[in-house]
Amino acid sequence: MNIDGSHYRTIWLKEGSPDTVQIINQKALPFKFEILDLRSLEDTAKAIKDMYVRGAGLIGASAAFGMYLAFFGAKENPCNKENIDKAALLLKNTRPTAINLSWAVDRMVSCLLKKEEMTPEQKREAALKQAQEIADEDAESCRQIGLHGLDIIKQISKKKKGETVNILTHCNAGWLAFVDYGSALSPVYAAFDQGIKVHLWVDETRPRNQGASLTAWELAQHGVSCDLIPDNAGGHLMQRGMVDLVITGADRVTRNGDAANKIGTYLKAVAAKENDIPFYIALPSSTFDFKMKDGVKEIPIEERDSSEVRYVEGKNSEGKIETVQICPDKTTARNWGFDVTPAKYITSFISERGICQADEKGIISLYPEFG
Amino acid sequence: MNIDGSHYRTIWLKEGSPDTVQIINQKALPFKFEILDLRSLEDTAKAIKDMYVRGAGLIGASAAFGMYLAFFGAKENPCNKENIDKAALLLKNTRPTAINLSWAVDRMVSCLLKKEEMTPEQKREAALKQAQEIADEDAESCRQIGLHGLDIIKQISKKKKGETVNILTHCNAGWLAFVDYGSALSPVYAAFDQGIKVHLWVDETRPRNQGASLTAWELAQHGVSCDLIPDNAGGHLMQRGMVDLVITGADRVTRNGDAANKIGTYLKAVAAKENDIPFYIALPSSTFDFKMKDGVKEIPIEERDSSEVRYVEGKNSEGKIETVQICPDKTTARNWGFDVTPAKYITSFISERGICQADEKGIISLYPEFG
Repeated sequence: MNIDGSHYRTIWLKEGSPDTVQIINQKALPFKFEILDLRSLEDTAKAIKDMYVRGAGLIGASAAFGMYLAFFGAKENPCNKENIDKAALLLKNTRPTAINLSWAVDRMVSCLLKKEEMTPEQKREAALKQAQEIADEDAESCRQIGLHGLDIIKQISKKKKGETVNILTHCNAGWLAFVDYGSALSPVYAAFDQGIKVHLWVDETRPRNQGASLTAWELAQHGVSCDLIPDNAGGHLMQRGMVDLVITGADRVTRNGDAANKIGTYLKAVAAKENDIPFYIALPSSTFDFKMKDGVKEIPIEERDSSEVRYVEGKNSEGKIETVQICPDKTTARNWGFDVTPAKYITSFISERGICQADEKGIISLYPEFG
Repeated sequence: MNIDGSHYRTIWLKEGSPDTVQIINQKALPFKFEILDLRSLEDTAKAIKDMYVRGAGLIGASAAFGMYLAFFGAKENPCNKENIDKAALLLKNTRPTAINLSWAVDRMVSCLLKKEEMTPEQKREAALKQAQEIADEDAESCRQIGLHGLDIIKQISKKKKGETVNILTHCNAGWLAFVDYGSALSPVYAAFDQGIKVHLWVDETRPRNQGASLTAWELAQHGVSCDLIPDNAGGHLMQRGMVDLVITGADRVTRNGDAANKIGTYLKAVAAKENDIPFYIALPSSTFDFKMKDGVKEIPIEERDSSEVRYVEGKNSEGKIETVQICPDKTTARNWGFDVTPAKYITSFISERGICQADEKGIISLYPEFG
C-alpha cells in the first residue's frame, strides 16, 4: 500500500525494537495518520477489541504478533502451556466473528508448544518468524486475490468496450483490513494499475462508517475514483444499471459457502441477485471455516455496544474530532456487527487459489485437502 | 398527536393571526421542540425545500397553506392568474418526488381561479377553507389508515398468541410526516392504544436520519417501545425471524403499484420478500399518481446535496447541535433521496379506503373512479 508516496503495511515489527509491534491507528483515520506501538499481549488485545486494528486478515496478523508479544514483548511472561493457553483465550475472546483470529492464534500456539526444548532466544526467533510468516502470507494471498479478481473486472470492462466499470463495495476490505493489498479492493487496485477504468460506490457502512472513513481514504491514496453513498442507496443504483458488480470481503465463510461479513452485506447481496448483478466475495484461505456448514445457524454474530448506533464521530467545524448524538436521549439501540449472506446469493468466491462457485463442491475443488 | 401531554398538529393557522401559519420545526427535533411562523409564499417554499417540514402529507398541506399565504399572508400579492401560476410553480419546484405537493397545489389553484368574482375578503376565506380542508382530510385519512392497518397487526398478534409484534419501519411516516396520525405509524398507534403489544425496529435512515431523530422521538412521545437500528441491520433481523411485518409510507405510488419512498425502502422490500415477511405501504389517496404506470421509469427521483452524506448533525458533549464530517476532505458523494419499490415486492397498500393488493386491479378496486 501507498500512503502519501511511502510504502506501508498495516502492522510490522518496529525497527531496532524487537519488543514492539507497530500499527496504523485506524480509529484516527481519515483525519490523522498515526502509528501506535503495541508492547504487550494486553496492548494487542485492546487494539483488536477496540478496533484500532480491524478487518479479517489484520485481526489475524495482529493476534499472531500479540502471541509473540505475550512472551517476548516489553512485559514478558514465562512461555509455558498454561500461559500460552491463557494468552490464546484472551485474544480469541476479543472478537467472535472473524475466523482469521482463532486461525492465527492456533498457529502461534502450535509453534510455541513445539519449541519447548529451545532456549528462550530460539523460541523468540521461532515465534517472531511464525508471526511474520502469517503476516507475509496474508499480504501474498491478497496480492494473488487481486490477480484472480482482475480477470473478472477485465472481462466486464471488455464487455463494456472499455467504459468505466462501476463496482459497489461495503465496509472496508482493502489494505487496511489486511496486512497489505486487501481482499475486495485488491482486484480493484490490480485493474486500476493496468489502466482499466474503474469507479467505486463506497457504502458508508453505518454504524462505524468504515466505508466513509477507511475505504474512501485508501482508494484516494491509490488514486481510484469513488463516490461515497449512504448504505441505503445501493439498491437504487443496482435497479438503474449503475452497478456492474459487487465485491466485498468476509469475516468467515463456511464449507457450504455461507459468508459472514459486515452488517448490511446481506441486503446488498439479495438486491444484487434480484437485479442480476454478480456478487463476489474475496477472501484469503484463512477466512474459510471448514468445520462449519450452515452459516446462519452456526456463525457467532458479535453484538456491539449500542453507543456506536446512537453516536457518530467526525470532524467538527473547528477541525476537532467530535462525537455527536443522533437520537433522543432515552432512545435504545441494537448493534449487530455482522450478518450472514447465504451461499445462494454469492456468484463466486475469489481466494488466492483462484475463483470458485459458492457451494461446497466449488469450495472443495479449490481446497481438496478439506474434502 | 401528543407532545408532552398536549395535542398538536404539524401545521396550523396561528390563533388570532390569519396572516401567519405555524409549523413544528422538524430540523430542530429531537433535541428541541420549536414552533416556527410562516408568513409568506417564500417562507413556505423555503420550509419545504430545506425540510423544516417534510413527509408526503405534510408537504401537501404546507403547500396548500403556502398558496393561501401567497395572497393573504403578511406580504400580499394581487390574486390573478399570472400570480397564481407563479406561486404554484415555485411550490411545485421545491421537491419533485412526493405527488402530494402538486396534488395540493392544484386543488388550491382551482379554488383560487374559481373565485374571481369574489371580494378579496371572500377569496381569503375560500382559500383558507380549502387549505384547512386539505389538512383536515389528511389527518382524517391517516386516522382511517390506522383503523385498517390495525386489523393487520391484530391478526399477527393473534397468530403470535399475544406475543409482541415486531414491526420494522424506514424513515418517518408518522404524525410528523402528515398533519396528524401518520401513515405507516398510524396502525401502530391504533394497535398500541388497543393494548396490543408492539415493538418497532426504527431504521436510522441515513443520510438525514429521520428514523433516529423523528420516528424514535414520536414513538417515545406516544409510549411505543422501539429500538434504533442502522439501515444495514434489517436484513439480519428478517433472516432471524425478528421482524413480523414491515410498514413504510410512500411519496408517490403509480397505478401499477410501484412505490417511491425514502432511499433504502427498496432494499428492505426485497429482503422482506426473500424472507416471506409481509411488506405494507400505508398512504392516503393523495399519494397515488394515477397518471403514471411504471414507477421505475417515470417517477422523478430527487438528488439532494452531497453534504447530507458527507456530514452528520447531532448533539455534542456540551449539548450543542453540531455537524461533523465523516469522510476525507476531498471525498465526493452522491445523494438520491428516494428509490422505487416495484409493486411485486409489496404485499398490500393500506389507504383510508381500505386494504388492496399492490397491482392495478387491486388499486382500481379501491379507486374505481380512476378505472
